[in-house]
Amino acid sequence: MKAKLVISKKPFTLKGFSFTGMNIGIKNQELDFGVVYSHVPAVAHAVFTKNRFPGAPVVVGKKHIRGGKLQAIVVNSKNANACTGSQGVRDARLMCDWTKEVLKLKKVGWVLPSSTGIIGMPLNMEVMKRGFISLAEKLAQNKPGVELFAQAIMTSDAYPKWGVVKIGKATLLAVAKGAGMIEPNMATMLAYFFTDADISHATLKSMFNEAVNLSFNAITVDSDTSTSDTAVIMANGLAGKVNQVTFNQGLTSLAQYLAKEIVRDGEGAHKVIALKISKTRSERLAHAIAKSVLNSPLVKTAIYGADPNWGRIIMAVGKVDVRYRFDGNKVKIYALDKAGDRGSNKVLLNGITGVKVNSGKVEKLKKIFQSQTVHLEIEVGNGKFSKTFWGSDLGVEYVKYNSEYTT
Amino acid sequence: MKAKLVISKKPFTLKGFSFTGMNIGIKNQELDFGVVYSHVPAVAHAVFTKNRFPGAPVVVGKKHIRGGKLQAIVVNSKNANACTGSQGVRDARLMCDWTKEVLKLKKVGWVLPSSTGIIGMPLNMEVMKRGFISLAEKLAQNKPGVELFAQAIMTSDAYPKWGVVKIGKATLLAVAKGAGMIEPNMATMLAYFFTDADISHATLKSMFNEAVNLSFNAITVDSDTSTSDTAVIMANGLAGKVNQVTFNQGLTSLAQYLAKEIVRDGEGAHKVIALKISKTRSERLAHAIAKSVLNSPLVKTAIYGADPNWGRIIMAVGKVDVRYRFDGNKVKIYALDKAGDRGSNKVLLNGITGVKVNSGKVEKLKKIFQSQTVHLEIEVGNGKFSKTFWGSDLGVEYVKYNSEYTT
Repeated sequence: MKAKLVISKKPFTLKGFSFTGMNIGIKNQELDFGVVYSHVPAVAHAVFTKNRFPGAPVVVGKKHIRGGKLQAIVVNSKNANACTGSQGVRDARLMCDWTKEVLKLKKVGWVLPSSTGIIGMPLNMEVMKRGFISLAEKLAQNKPGVELFAQAIMTSDAYPKWGVVKIGKATLLAVAKGAGMIEPNMATMLAYFFTDADISHATLKSMFNEAVNLSFNAITVDSDTSTSDTAVIMANGLAGKVNQVTFNQGLTSLAQYLAKEIVRDGEGAHKVIALKISKTRSERLAHAIAKSVLNSPLVKTAIYGADPNWGRIIMAVGKVDVRYRFDGNKVKIYALDKAGDRGSNKVLLNGITGVKVNSGKVEKLKKIFQSQTVHLEIEVGNGKFSKTFWGSDLGVEYVKYNSEYTT
Repeated sequence: MKAKLVISKKPFTLKGFSFTGMNIGIKNQELDFGVVYSHVPAVAHAVFTKNRFPGAPVVVGKKHIRGGKLQAIVVNSKNANACTGSQGVRDARLMCDWTKEVLKLKKVGWVLPSSTGIIGMPLNMEVMKRGFISLAEKLAQNKPGVELFAQAIMTSDAYPKWGVVKIGKATLLAVAKGAGMIEPNMATMLAYFFTDADISHATLKSMFNEAVNLSFNAITVDSDTSTSDTAVIMANGLAGKVNQVTFNQGLTSLAQYLAKEIVRDGEGAHKVIALKISKTRSERLAHAIAKSVLNSPLVKTAIYGADPNWGRIIMAVGKVDVRYRFDGNKVKIYALDKAGDRGSNKVLLNGITGVKVNSGKVEKLKKIFQSQTVHLEIEVGNGKFSKTFWGSDLGVEYVKYNSEYTT
């Protein structure tokens, strides 16, 4: 049985989850506070930033997720509550306490907190308190609160990011926000997944780890890893069992959709670079090559300017640290008209001989670099592993935004 | 005995070396062809790019340097002769053949070729030939040809880069060109050292490797490694023996001077970030942390804009790959008024607690970020090793130049 795995924003039913978003005064007018509540405790799993200086909500969230259950998520934007010492941890805990109290949860450990925005400023807890005054009512009122929640967690995002997949009788909904590795103020990549499917913790954990690996861990905007990255999934079981293979497919598709949305909306970014690393020995080698190419400022600026300066791609493949072993002579680099196209519209870039000097090929390359999504494939030629990664181009706006911003 | 290790461009005597630079028509008017000739064969050593797709002159140069002797260096700019296949290698060899013939050298293996500029275009050997017509005469005429040679190897450099150190009766001269890792067209970091001191090959090799490690290998402009980087030293012995300790000091100082010049003249760069990694376990760990900070676009743009957004520096230290082990709690990050200053003008950034919120400190940090050279120190706290690295800020001009350039 193959389900229709269409990602949409059409009206949907997701049993037992309520969403809300509001302005409590951290930002001037825009929404800055959001909560998701599951009517019953949900099986849950989360992964966090590997940065050695995690924000306070990450410290607290890591503890809370250990029990494998969550019933609520509470988020504020505009302030990351990171590098705020023990006061920060106390404040993150207080956000959970208040959530537990207002929503009458059994355990404070069933609340996962997130904060995203400026680093190094303590939260103003007098302001934060405002979010909890009429929270229960707002969650009850706002049937279609997803859009509000998606807005409330935004920082420099240009638009809210979410999507829904129907899997049998169950539904999977996910909401994400702006490129953690590009956020001008080291805010956060946040991604929240909610389903009413009934799935065991062990299955949920392994499927989610794999989906994150194939999506959020395969993107880069500017190589900088936030102190607050968090991705979490909650399954409350209210829609019953589902086909696990189909669910897995839906989960991966939705995670990749949001990961690409984050890249597309990256600061100063205009294009998505979709890079398939193929015929390689290991995932580790694929990552090293992909990262070298997608983080190369010379590759990124060439694609931004649609300059067919293909030597830069070859340079970026060649500069991968020598401890990663592969033979340059076996490498084939393709620029493709569209994903998977290996027909007449591909251009082969050879590290040793370059492209045969041919103005037709250079023109074709220029056309490919002008696309909204630029498809590249690097055949390493030493194995069978393949994986796709996504990155953004690098425009003048990135530098402007990130240098003119004032703390 | 301590020699005066002053780096200058004042008139000097360097026995038995002749320099020249000329326009042969690769560029429109600017100098594009340079040769250095030692009147006697010189003991020599060179190091090259680790990029897996080295340019043709690197392939040929690696072979020629094996004998440990050189008598001439021949360089063209504007065309890198890289990704040009077997034709490129034949052309690089031909440059050496012609040099040997005109200068009446005993062996073609005593010539080291370099090319710097556009990748993937074959050299026009009819044009190249012009360089050799009156080469012998020009080398004889141009007593102060160093300035001409330094100009002839430039690509996007704003100014020629060279310096001289007097060591006892001997002289050490070095010429370098534009930031290999920043060159908009993946041209080359080239650095040539010439001395009339009498030094054995083994000593020269170990001193030069160490000097390169403490200078050119400790800089980064944009994290991109050229396909043609070359650093070479020639010692012809005509001024006799020198104090080796002093020579070593002079060599390292001169190499660091030129490395910093390359950073200062980096594409779109306005400031030098001098980063000392101290109290660390190993050079490998020092490199990893320094690279993470100096290549972070968010750190570089903050310093470009003199935005005291210190959370970005903490983020960049924290994101170092988990395979490098160190304890975030032991890390101390300082912004200093000047190198080595640990007095009242330092600002301590603590990864866990940030800076104590204090507008005075933030103002001080802003002032530090406004300096032409921004001094940072990161105490890792797990050992005794320390090393200084240099990087550039990231300005709007970098993106403009590298995206608007058309191949």
